[in-house]
Amino acid sequence: MKKYQEMTKAELLQEKQQLEAEYKKIKEIGLQLNMARGKPSSEQLDLSMDLLNVLTKDDILKAEDGTDCRNYGIMDGIEEAKELMAEVVGCKKENVIVYGNSSLNIMYDQVARAEIFGICGNTPWSKLDKVKFLCPVPGYDRHFKITQTFGIEMINIPMTSEGPDMDLVEKYVNNDERVKGIWCVPKYSNPQGVVYSDETVRRFANLKPAAKDFRIFWDNAYAVHHLYEDNQAEILNILDECAKAGNPDMVYQFCSTSKVTFPGAGIAALSSSEENLKDIKSKLTVQTIGHDKINQLRHVKYFKNIDGIKAHMKKQADIIRPKFEMLIDMLNEEIKPLGIGNWVDPVGGYFVCFESLEGCAKEIIGKCKEAGVTMTGAGAPFPYGKDEKDSTIRIAPTYPSMDELKKATEVFITCTKLVSVNKCLEKTESKVFEVNTAKEVL
Amino acid sequence: MKKYQEMTKAELLQEKQQLEAEYKKIKEIGLQLNMARGKPSSEQLDLSMDLLNVLTKDDILKAEDGTDCRNYGIMDGIEEAKELMAEVVGCKKENVIVYGNSSLNIMYDQVARAEIFGICGNTPWSKLDKVKFLCPVPGYDRHFKITQTFGIEMINIPMTSEGPDMDLVEKYVNNDERVKGIWCVPKYSNPQGVVYSDETVRRFANLKPAAKDFRIFWDNAYAVHHLYEDNQAEILNILDECAKAGNPDMVYQFCSTSKVTFPGAGIAALSSSEENLKDIKSKLTVQTIGHDKINQLRHVKYFKNIDGIKAHMKKQADIIRPKFEMLIDMLNEEIKPLGIGNWVDPVGGYFVCFESLEGCAKEIIGKCKEAGVTMTGAGAPFPYGKDEKDSTIRIAPTYPSMDELKKATEVFITCTKLVSVNKCLEKTESKVFEVNTAKEVL
Repeated sequence: MKKYQEMTKAELLQEKQQLEAEYKKIKEIGLQLNMARGKPSSEQLDLSMDLLNVLTKDDILKAEDGTDCRNYGIMDGIEEAKELMAEVVGCKKENVIVYGNSSLNIMYDQVARAEIFGICGNTPWSKLDKVKFLCPVPGYDRHFKITQTFGIEMINIPMTSEGPDMDLVEKYVNNDERVKGIWCVPKYSNPQGVVYSDETVRRFANLKPAAKDFRIFWDNAYAVHHLYEDNQAEILNILDECAKAGNPDMVYQFCSTSKVTFPGAGIAALSSSEENLKDIKSKLTVQTIGHDKINQLRHVKYFKNIDGIKAHMKKQADIIRPKFEMLIDMLNEEIKPLGIGNWVDPVGGYFVCFESLEGCAKEIIGKCKEAGVTMTGAGAPFPYGKDEKDSTIRIAPTYPSMDELKKATEVFITCTKLVSVNKCLEKTESKVFEVNTAKEVL
Repeated sequence: MKKYQEMTKAELLQEKQQLEAEYKKIKEIGLQLNMARGKPSSEQLDLSMDLLNVLTKDDILKAEDGTDCRNYGIMDGIEEAKELMAEVVGCKKENVIVYGNSSLNIMYDQVARAEIFGICGNTPWSKLDKVKFLCPVPGYDRHFKITQTFGIEMINIPMTSEGPDMDLVEKYVNNDERVKGIWCVPKYSNPQGVVYSDETVRRFANLKPAAKDFRIFWDNAYAVHHLYEDNQAEILNILDECAKAGNPDMVYQFCSTSKVTFPGAGIAALSSSEENLKDIKSKLTVQTIGHDKINQLRHVKYFKNIDGIKAHMKKQADIIRPKFEMLIDMLNEEIKPLGIGNWVDPVGGYFVCFESLEGCAKEIIGKCKEAGVTMTGAGAPFPYGKDEKDSTIRIAPTYPSMDELKKATEVFITCTKLVSVNKCLEKTESKVFEVNTAKEVL
C-alpha cells in the first residue's frame, strides 16, 4: 500500500471514489454503535455479580472495630476499607479517606472547597484575581470541565511518552503563584495510556511551587487496570516521593472501584498527607455524616485484599484485551500503511488515542456519527474543547461487543480514510505536509 | 408534690441534700449511656435486613427503562426511585432528583452552589457583602453548621406550636433582600416535634421575597416517621402551594431513607420546580456522573411503593413508641409536679425537646455527662450554639434499649432536679421567677 501523501492526484481521486461508495453502503446499514465513553461491558460487570451476595440478611454488618455499618457514624470510612483502597494505590491506610461512589465527585469537592474556603488556611481561590491549572493534553474531559466551571484558567501541557512535559510544568509551577494545580492521570493516562516514568514522578515530587497551596490532582484511576499479565506498569508512590522531597502536602490522590466492580455503585477514596486530611475533614464534617459503610464493607468482604482485586482485574483484562488487540490490529492493517494516523498501543487503561492527519478529527468523528457510530466528541480531550491541531480522537473499545467493535472500527477506518484522502487532495496543490510522528503526539 | 418555686428555703435545702446523695450513688455506678443523637436502634435496623437480599447475583439489575444499573449513567436517578421518593413527600416524580446516601449532603451542596455559582443566574452569594438565613429555633444543629461554615449570618426565629413565627418570617423575607434562605423541618420538627399548620405552609408559599434568589430549605426529614397509627400528621404540599401562589421556584425540598432503612446506606432526594432542577443539573453534571443506582433499585424493589414504606414505618413506630412513652411518663411523674420543665409530647420524629428552668440546661447536661449519660450538647439546637435562655435540652430516646433509656432518664431526672433546686435556692433571696410555659417554649 502506498501512503496517501505519496499518491498522485489521480490515485487519490480514485481512492476517494471507492471510499465514497463504501461509505454510502455503510450508511445504508443504519448502524447504532458507540465507542465514545470508557464504560465496562456487560460481561465485565457480570464478573462482579457475586458482590451482591456477599452481605445478606444473616450477616452481622459490623466493621472490624465493632462499628455497626448500618447506622450513622465514621465520616472517613471504615478501617478495613481504608486499608483496601490504600493497597490499590500503595499508600498507608492512615492517609486515606473512603468516600461514596465517585472519585470525580471527590475531585470536584476538592476544587470547590479550595475555591470557597482555601487550602490549609490559604486564601480561598474565589478571592483571587486569577487561578490557573496545568492540563496535560490530551487529557480527561471531566477534569477540564471541573476547572472550567470554576472559571480557572487552563494551560495546556503537552504529553510525552514519559508523562507531562516536566520542563514546562516546572517553569509554570515554580514561577507563577497563580498556578494552583495540575490534573494528572499517572498510570495508563486517559486517553493515551501513558505511564509516568520514575523520573517524571520524582520531578513532580521535587517541584518548588511558587504557591503554597499548589496541589497535584493525582487521579490514579487505572491503578490496577492492566491489560497484560506480563507487562504491568508500576509507578512510583507519589505520596512517598513528595514526603521524601520535603513536599508532603503537595498531592491529592484519587482512586475508585468504578471500573473494578460497578461504576456508580463502587467506592472511591482520597489519599493525602495528614495535614491535608485534617484540613479536608474540618469541612467534610459539615458536608456529611458519613458515606455508605455497607457498600464499603461489601467491597472489603468481596475482595478481602489487593490480591482479590488483582485476580478480579485479570478476569476483566481477559475480556477487554481481545478488544484492544482487534482494534489495534485493524488500525495496523488499514491505517498505518497509508500514513494517515498514529497511536501508541496501550498496555492498560480504557482507551486508544488516535492521532489523525491535522485538521481531520472533527470531520472523521462527524462522518462516523452520520454512519451511526458515536465517538468521543472532537476536542473533548482538551481544555475548552479546543484541539488546535484537530487531530486527536479518543477511542473507547471496552463497551461494545467484539462484533460491534469490529463493525464500528470498520466504519471508523473508512471515515478516516475518506476524510484523509480529501485532506490530501486539498493539499496536493499546496505544500506537502507531514503526519504527526508518534513522538510528537505523545 | 410541691413545686420547687413554692418551696421554702429549708425545704429546698432538704431536697438538695437528698438529691446530692442520690447523684453520688448514680455516679458510682459508672454508667455509659447516650441520649445525644437521633440514631435508630439495632432493633429498628434489623427490620431492614431483607433489603440486603432483594438483589442477588441472579437478578438482572435493569431499571424499568432498560438502563443497566450496574454501569455509568442517569445522573438524576432511575425513574422508579424518583417515583418512590416523590411519594414520600407527595410530589410529582418529574420534580425529583435522586442522589446518594445523604440529604444533608444535598443541602450542603445547594448552599455551596448558591455561594459559588448563584441560583438561577443570580449573583453568587460569595460575591455579596452579606447573606442571611432565618433559623427557626430550636432547630437542627447540622443545618446551622452549614450556614455558619459559609459565613452566612443566622437570625433566630422563635417556633410556635404551628411552626416558625410567620409574622417575623414575613417581615424579614419580604423586606430584606440579604435574606436568602430559611431552614425548615416542617413535619415533626427537630427537636420539638412541631407540625407546621396549613396556615403556616400557606404563609410560606405566599411570601413575597425581596430577594429573587430566596429559597426555603424544606427538610422533610420525618415525612413518614409517625409514632401513632391513629394520629399521623399531614402537612400541605409545599411545592403545590408555592406554585399556586405564583412562587414555583421558592422551595428546595429534601428527604431521605436514612431513618427508614439504613442511615448512611439509604437514598436521598431533592424535589423542586422544573426551573430549579434545570439550574441544579447544569452544575451537577460537572460534579458527578451519577449516584448509586443499584442502591436505588434495591430500595425500590424492597418497598415497591409508598405503602411498603408505610408498613415498614409502622414496625419502626412499634419499636420506638414505647421508648417515647416511657420517657414522657417518667418526666410527667417526676418533673412536671415540680414545675421545673416543660415539653410537648411528640407524635412523630426522633426527639423530645425539654425546656428546663432558665439558666439550667448547660449544667444539667454537664451533670449528666459526669454521671456517664451523654446528652446533645447544650446550645446545639441554636445558631452559633447560643441558647440565650440556657434552657433547651434535646432528648433522643430511640437509640438506647428500653432498659438503658430508663436508666439514662433516671439520671437525667435526678440531674434536672439537682440543678433546678440549686437554681431555686439562688433565687429564694431574690425575686420569684417563672418557668417557661409550654406556649412560650414552642
